[in-house]
Amino acid sequence: MKISHIEHLGIACPSIEKALPFFENVLGLKCYNVEVVEDQKVKTAFLKVGEVKLELLEPTSPDSTIAKFIEKNGGRGGMHHLAFCIEDGVANALAEAEGLGIALIDKAPRKGAEGLNIAFLHPKSTAAVLTELCENPNK
Amino acid sequence: MKISHIEHLGIACPSIEKALPFFENVLGLKCYNVEVVEDQKVKTAFLKVGEVKLELLEPTSPDSTIAKFIEKNGGRGGMHHLAFCIEDGVANALAEAEGLGIALIDKAPRKGAEGLNIAFLHPKSTAAVLTELCENPNK
Repeated sequence: MKISHIEHLGIACPSIEKALPFFENVLGLKCYNVEVVEDQKVKTAFLKVGEVKLELLEPTSPDSTIAKFIEKNGGRGGMHHLAFCIEDGVANALAEAEGLGIALIDKAPRKGAEGLNIAFLHPKSTAAVLTELCENPNK
Repeated sequence: MKISHIEHLGIACPSIEKALPFFENVLGLKCYNVEVVEDQKVKTAFLKVGEVKLELLEPTSPDSTIAKFIEKNGGRGGMHHLAFCIEDGVANALAEAEGLGIALIDKAPRKGAEGLNIAFLHPKSTAAVLTELCENPNK
């Protein structure tokens, strides 16, 4: 697969409202979008730093995977997943990864935040880094 | 403080040798440097993706902070810290952060991998993301 850059870094947090002042007032980054992703049961807030987005993820339901991650992490959240921008397509990348013996969470691309096509690889195959592959279908 | 981009993302792993094939053979990234940082008791391996480095961290001693992180995480490792490149100096950034009530791990910059001046903020003040500030003294 051909990766151009890190598309975003997902950061779980119990409350976006409480987390944002660190990123905005201390680091000087700017939140440019807040979005609810219904099927993932999360509210997301995006900030940009260089070519990379930080995606803050707040659970909107106690049964979201982000709520479970936060619970497991002593209620604190933290870095959750790493998303790469794939230049030659997520479907191709999934097939290639599977061929190399990588366990997939998603067998086919699906819609994620900001209209991207996304798919996750399983952390048991990815050095314990939950890895997301993304492409922008409008580019 | 003025941040230009993410300098690197630190990823703890029990074994760099076992982790590298995912990053090199599956993601297609290239390891360009391996370095032991004695005072942190880690071996590091660097790969570049876009403007960001991935820093794989393997403990060289059971009492390194990375060994403790891996132990706490069920032996698996994972994303450990997020490092920002500071354009207006790490010392300035530390003073500014402290003035805003942020808990510091390092009160003053010290030497890190690749000859950078670095300092860590405490995750209790940073939305549970262990945050490193970096500057290249040779730029």
